[in-house]
Amino acid sequence: MSNKPSLHTSLSPALLHLYDLSNSVVVIIDVFRATSTIASALYNGARCVIPVDSVPKALEIAKNIGGIAAGERDGKIADGLEHGNSPMEYNREFIENKNLVLTTTNGTRLLQMALDKNADTIISGSFPNLSAVCDFLVKENKNVVLGCAGWKDRFNLEDTLYAGAIIHAIGKKFTIHCDSSLMAETMYAKNKNKLHEFAPKLTHYHRLVERFGLIEDIRFCLTPDVANVLPLYVEGKLVAR
Amino acid sequence: MSNKPSLHTSLSPALLHLYDLSNSVVVIIDVFRATSTIASALYNGARCVIPVDSVPKALEIAKNIGGIAAGERDGKIADGLEHGNSPMEYNREFIENKNLVLTTTNGTRLLQMALDKNADTIISGSFPNLSAVCDFLVKENKNVVLGCAGWKDRFNLEDTLYAGAIIHAIGKKFTIHCDSSLMAETMYAKNKNKLHEFAPKLTHYHRLVERFGLIEDIRFCLTPDVANVLPLYVEGKLVAR
Repeated sequence: MSNKPSLHTSLSPALLHLYDLSNSVVVIIDVFRATSTIASALYNGARCVIPVDSVPKALEIAKNIGGIAAGERDGKIADGLEHGNSPMEYNREFIENKNLVLTTTNGTRLLQMALDKNADTIISGSFPNLSAVCDFLVKENKNVVLGCAGWKDRFNLEDTLYAGAIIHAIGKKFTIHCDSSLMAETMYAKNKNKLHEFAPKLTHYHRLVERFGLIEDIRFCLTPDVANVLPLYVEGKLVAR
Repeated sequence: MSNKPSLHTSLSPALLHLYDLSNSVVVIIDVFRATSTIASALYNGARCVIPVDSVPKALEIAKNIGGIAAGERDGKIADGLEHGNSPMEYNREFIENKNLVLTTTNGTRLLQMALDKNADTIISGSFPNLSAVCDFLVKENKNVVLGCAGWKDRFNLEDTLYAGAIIHAIGKKFTIHCDSSLMAETMYAKNKNKLHEFAPKLTHYHRLVERFGLIEDIRFCLTPDVANVLPLYVEGKLVAR
């Protein structure tokens, strides 16, 4: 028997209940765009990112602790907020030494689910911080659940491709008996040299680019290691480690 | 705007609620082995296959109408039954002109879910009846939901590969904005000439072959058009059309 820890991929929040999180590092994956934005903000010096599940809560917490309330619903800046879920908004000039309170359609909801299921450790992952995530998972040497946020519980390929990128890089360090992980790694290996060319095939690409013109966001979100920081969830906050 | 009907792939019963079934032909897919067994039995002259959700119900109905009660739980013949869920059991000598009452872990449960969600039309699909399913879907020219049964709500690749085989064959007849379908077709196209070589990578292969020695079943279940019949659900029964 192998003594390697296990690795599983959950393709949708609606499947997360199938996995034991209590002994696992859970990687929250919302490539377009929440976890890419979290990496961007922390890489650019944000003190922390506080994920919350509603706009009123984002406004209240931002007011109480002194911070930026931000978020999106259905791909655009949420009503009542001035800042959205674009990684491009959170450059160093704007976000350094500030707290970011963020609410999003899929990613922050998945993080709350992982908390409710008593995940041992929660981190957030995206292409911009791929290497930092891989290094952490190898160092921790615990079981891993790669949690894809999807879109309103639907499977999406960008989150799956990112799960595949992790498996491609460090899968050999884990015991993997999981068809989702096998599929994710296969899809990534096939497309790794043409992620930007592949992107227009994704349903979410059409939502973001054709409706909102967010081509720069997409480029950033598919580029490895441009904001290579590890967002670790500690006492209600994602902080850089 | 395209006037083609839509096609979606549901990767797990836990995701079926995301799709509108009321205007759709739903293809129940449980490659290892329920829907392959259904194709085998009907191809070999079974009068009908009655899918039920429990062993007592299977026994009761088989007694009342005169038929064979059969089924599996966790990959082996269910306690209390004499016949299982192997397509190899249902040769013409055994099953011709008989009623088969079948209960299985995943496939028959998914069929019940599709019924509960008021699916317009329900058929059952597997590699052994791939062409019959494709021909029917093209002829009907309605929206399609490819429903993968998975394993206890987990994603599995054999059902996804079969969904991909359908899309590979007739996808151009449909409007497809669905990352699951894009993934399924990509995985199938990559592996279509080596399905039997790919099979040992699947978690379900290990369950069936290493634990139960069912290598012949696997071969049958991955071979297109060897039992090319269309199982259509009509008033509680799957019948050959």
